[in-house]
Amino acid sequence: MEEAQVGKSSRFKRVCVFCGSSTGKRNCYQDAAVELGKELVARKVDLVYGGGSIGLMGLVSEAVHSGGGHVIGIIPRTLMGKEVGLLNVDGYYNSLLAFIDKAVDDGFIKPFQRHIIVSSPNAKDLVQKLEEYVPVQDAVVATLRWEKEQAGYNFCLQADISR
Amino acid sequence: MEEAQVGKSSRFKRVCVFCGSSTGKRNCYQDAAVELGKELVARKVDLVYGGGSIGLMGLVSEAVHSGGGHVIGIIPRTLMGKEVGLLNVDGYYNSLLAFIDKAVDDGFIKPFQRHIIVSSPNAKDLVQKLEEYVPVQDAVVATLRWEKEQAGYNFCLQADISR
Repeated sequence: MEEAQVGKSSRFKRVCVFCGSSTGKRNCYQDAAVELGKELVARKVDLVYGGGSIGLMGLVSEAVHSGGGHVIGIIPRTLMGKEVGLLNVDGYYNSLLAFIDKAVDDGFIKPFQRHIIVSSPNAKDLVQKLEEYVPVQDAVVATLRWEKEQAGYNFCLQADISR
Repeated sequence: MEEAQVGKSSRFKRVCVFCGSSTGKRNCYQDAAVELGKELVARKVDLVYGGGSIGLMGLVSEAVHSGGGHVIGIIPRTLMGKEVGLLNVDGYYNSLLAFIDKAVDDGFIKPFQRHIIVSSPNAKDLVQKLEEYVPVQDAVVATLRWEKEQAGYNFCLQADISR
């Protein structure tokens, strides 16, 4: 091979994957599941089971396992409440995302809650986006700290975040 | 009043309502929440809390309570796994329904699972639809029984239902 496979680093020790317990009727979903498994292996990220070992879930775990990655069968509490990545294969989640945006527009989901969902049509981009993800709360804290230093005023941070 | 309010009967002793813990940004949602509460009172159906007592949830329970209906604060186990009614105010759930239909088309949700969701743009129609709801399993049993009587063959019911 001319180009050696360079191991990518990741800020994640593990990710929890939820997907279909069936494989679906179209090949693109199965291909994407395998791609995702390979991407996790390339980044040395462990896989945490969010579903069963059949269907798409089985394909992801098989890809991680056969690539030498670790597969963990339970969901640690510490994974809860983190950012959510949607692998939006061939626009599968477009309507769901539209619904979530509608709920934000109409005042039932707060914009900072919407922000935890990132999506991409392929595994590589999705994992990259998750790597680069900055929680809104942290972003607000950073901005406020900067603004406070600049202008010297005080903010009620909690009110700002929960607005 | 020329037309006396005739008490409607219901096959439901109670329904569990989930809705926004905020009131949303548009009046139509608040109006619909109150309408739903009134419809439950008219049918003498008790309300089971699926959410908090604020926002739209608060409006529904207020309407039931002030109409003389019963409001129950917990979700009984027996309510789980029943049909689901979406009060699709001004098309709020259209994208979610489109997503669910996509999931059925692509083989991730079985058609009989999709069938448990009924929707309507107004409370009166929605409750009426729920009243008339026939579970697919029951419908399949009825059809199979009829077909068996007509043609004399045996079916593997479980396989048929889980197809």
